[in-house]
Amino acid sequence: MDNYTATPRTRIRRLPKRGSYDKLAVHAILDQGFICHVGFAVDAQPYVIPTIYARDGATLFVHGSAVSRMLRTLAQAVPVCITVTLLDGLVLARSAFHHSLNYRSVVMIGNARLVEDAEQKWRALHLITNHVVPARWEEARTPSELELRQTSVLALPLQEVSAKIRSGPPIDDEEDYARPIWAGVVPVETRLGTPIDDGRLLAGVADIDLTRIRRFAPLTD
Amino acid sequence: MDNYTATPRTRIRRLPKRGSYDKLAVHAILDQGFICHVGFAVDAQPYVIPTIYARDGATLFVHGSAVSRMLRTLAQAVPVCITVTLLDGLVLARSAFHHSLNYRSVVMIGNARLVEDAEQKWRALHLITNHVVPARWEEARTPSELELRQTSVLALPLQEVSAKIRSGPPIDDEEDYARPIWAGVVPVETRLGTPIDDGRLLAGVADIDLTRIRRFAPLTD
Repeated sequence: MDNYTATPRTRIRRLPKRGSYDKLAVHAILDQGFICHVGFAVDAQPYVIPTIYARDGATLFVHGSAVSRMLRTLAQAVPVCITVTLLDGLVLARSAFHHSLNYRSVVMIGNARLVEDAEQKWRALHLITNHVVPARWEEARTPSELELRQTSVLALPLQEVSAKIRSGPPIDDEEDYARPIWAGVVPVETRLGTPIDDGRLLAGVADIDLTRIRRFAPLTD
Repeated sequence: MDNYTATPRTRIRRLPKRGSYDKLAVHAILDQGFICHVGFAVDAQPYVIPTIYARDGATLFVHGSAVSRMLRTLAQAVPVCITVTLLDGLVLARSAFHHSLNYRSVVMIGNARLVEDAEQKWRALHLITNHVVPARWEEARTPSELELRQTSVLALPLQEVSAKIRSGPPIDDEEDYARPIWAGVVPVETRLGTPIDDGRLLAGVADIDLTRIRRFAPLTD
């Protein structure tokens, strides 16, 4: 078992059987997700901002404009929480109370640090770009010096991390199974649509191959 | 124009042309979304937790177990941020720097209050259930007294609210259009799969009709 260590801050207390600290489970969710929600406080007011990210072993990278409030705040190594949530299904029970969602989420807390080393920053931007579309970095124009200066990268070491997963059918109270109500799971799937080029492609440029974006296979099966 | 008032805390400073305070735009995003991410701090550590919600006019309701950390914390009317994000597409530019996502997000900040009035709590649970599947409350068994005591509902008045929206193709630097690289948008669509009943339906119970869940039409067109 290779687990993250549960701490009082990350131990799943509500419905603990849904909790997991297993690194493989955590990393699988992070690698499938697309958007994370970054939580930080300014003058005691929390903010939650969506952004993209990438995982590098046991480090999570996020990036953004060097002048954004989020990046300027987090660069000061204040406490942060980054959460990734995948929605897998609507869970319809016979009782309103037992309605739920099937989901997989990861909550990561700690203190992020500004990535100042040029080589590590380049690696982080490479990984973030390729997290969206594998091997995209290798075909796109890479950042100029000016673009690098306009971009900040933050690294959060994955230490206090927990996953929470719900799957399977609704669980009703035994007496409610006698009710004539449909109950079960409606899967929620994320799919890619037909690509729309920007109308300025050079002649002979091949279409983008969506099979490169492997994690967009149906989330449920 | 019926707008939320932009404050120093909610004014979109990065790429302000993506910002909107228009109530119709904000409400449309909230009504289409499924999951919100709730940000709150405990001992200066932010937490970001996914949950479901519903909008009632200019109030957002969230609910959860009365004994959860999130509900117990927010019931003390501490500052909260609730964010809803819809992902619409992957924006692939010719340069790594101009890669982006098409998305619609709403950020709401303020102080939530515990809903103690029984009638308003009932209404909130009704709306939250029907936010997932319209008219589900009317067919499901409604909560018992015990279930009501086990559930807390919080209300956040929508006052400091902003939406941020990106749509359309990538915008490359002019000189990069000469590069032989595919550029455009890959739509991301959320769809419902084939319902899976829980194997304990009574004879004669009709299948769930997915057309009730109207907002799961393709997010992009």
